[in-house]
Amino acid sequence: MNGTVEDERQRLVKLTFELTKRYGRSISVSDLAAETRIARTRLLEIFEDDNALFDGIVEEWFAPKLAIMDEVMASDLPSRRKLYEFVARRYVQQRDQFRADPTGFRVFLELGEQHFERARSYIDLADHYMCELIAQAQADGYFEGLELNDALSLINQMLNCYIQPINLTYMDARLNEEKLGRIVDAMFDGLSGEDRGAKSVSGLRAAT
Amino acid sequence: MNGTVEDERQRLVKLTFELTKRYGRSISVSDLAAETRIARTRLLEIFEDDNALFDGIVEEWFAPKLAIMDEVMASDLPSRRKLYEFVARRYVQQRDQFRADPTGFRVFLELGEQHFERARSYIDLADHYMCELIAQAQADGYFEGLELNDALSLINQMLNCYIQPINLTYMDARLNEEKLGRIVDAMFDGLSGEDRGAKSVSGLRAAT
Repeated sequence: MNGTVEDERQRLVKLTFELTKRYGRSISVSDLAAETRIARTRLLEIFEDDNALFDGIVEEWFAPKLAIMDEVMASDLPSRRKLYEFVARRYVQQRDQFRADPTGFRVFLELGEQHFERARSYIDLADHYMCELIAQAQADGYFEGLELNDALSLINQMLNCYIQPINLTYMDARLNEEKLGRIVDAMFDGLSGEDRGAKSVSGLRAAT
Repeated sequence: MNGTVEDERQRLVKLTFELTKRYGRSISVSDLAAETRIARTRLLEIFEDDNALFDGIVEEWFAPKLAIMDEVMASDLPSRRKLYEFVARRYVQQRDQFRADPTGFRVFLELGEQHFERARSYIDLADHYMCELIAQAQADGYFEGLELNDALSLINQMLNCYIQPINLTYMDARLNEEKLGRIVDAMFDGLSGEDRGAKSVSGLRAAT
């Protein structure tokens, strides 16, 4: 696409993004034609089909998150700080987005659930970067004795409240960056492959 | 209520529990009358109104969880093991319930969301017990420098995947007791009120 067509595409994606929030459902090329009074054939030159239009929306949703991830990964912070920023900055971006428009936010979460395969590459990229961060931390002596995939899974679970946007919809008031910082500190100082007895083979003993 | 009436009440609550799952919505006294061919006036002697019937369902849902909490709290395990069992046993009970009937499980989660105030006392009791566990752990030297309420909030967040039943509906395959054990160990050995640098006042530095 040349510059002008790309500009028009961007403009139409942003408009479709707003229409999606307003109508609470995914927008088809026909919807967009009706809304803009641009001929459907003209729109189909820009967006091949409804999927291509929806992919534009997915890109629009993830663009600020991708920018944050790239910026943090390019920084030279120590591993603990870097992992914190990697999660905290996306959390803050999503939180602000949620607070500005809770209804619209829920619409995108529902669409994301229905079209999970289209969000897949973003989640894969976030996991890929997280593995790089874990490898850096392990080189610094953290997360000792844990396979990379196990460390990834445990860290994603411990930070789930700050990573999974759905949590904002019911526990926003209880989340904040200070708590996230304490959880990341607890992870770096406490998470390892060594069994220290929380889970035991023995059962309960009744109090005497 | 005398024994026979209480037996009948129990039987009707269990039946209503099954009907709720089958129809995917809350069941009124009129529904129950139609289903059982017991006179509505007779049912109203046992359940004063629809709310009383729904309260029976809430009790039925939480009864096994309350039994687990009471059993663990009455045990004389060390604090780390006790906190693990307090969370793990309810997680396993809910997981088995979810796997046996995912659709029915989702119905109760939705009803729980709609009637949150009726689940409130269970959540309050779980938090109350968790505070006792934290106090026991702090007496043993863990979670140093954290106010009780802050420790409670941080622990509930770190264990959120295993506490909030909604998580089972989309990440059941990634959850297990081994991981929960590692997270509890990480909490006990890493969580404290001391700032160890994850969150910093300084911003990002670009890589050179």
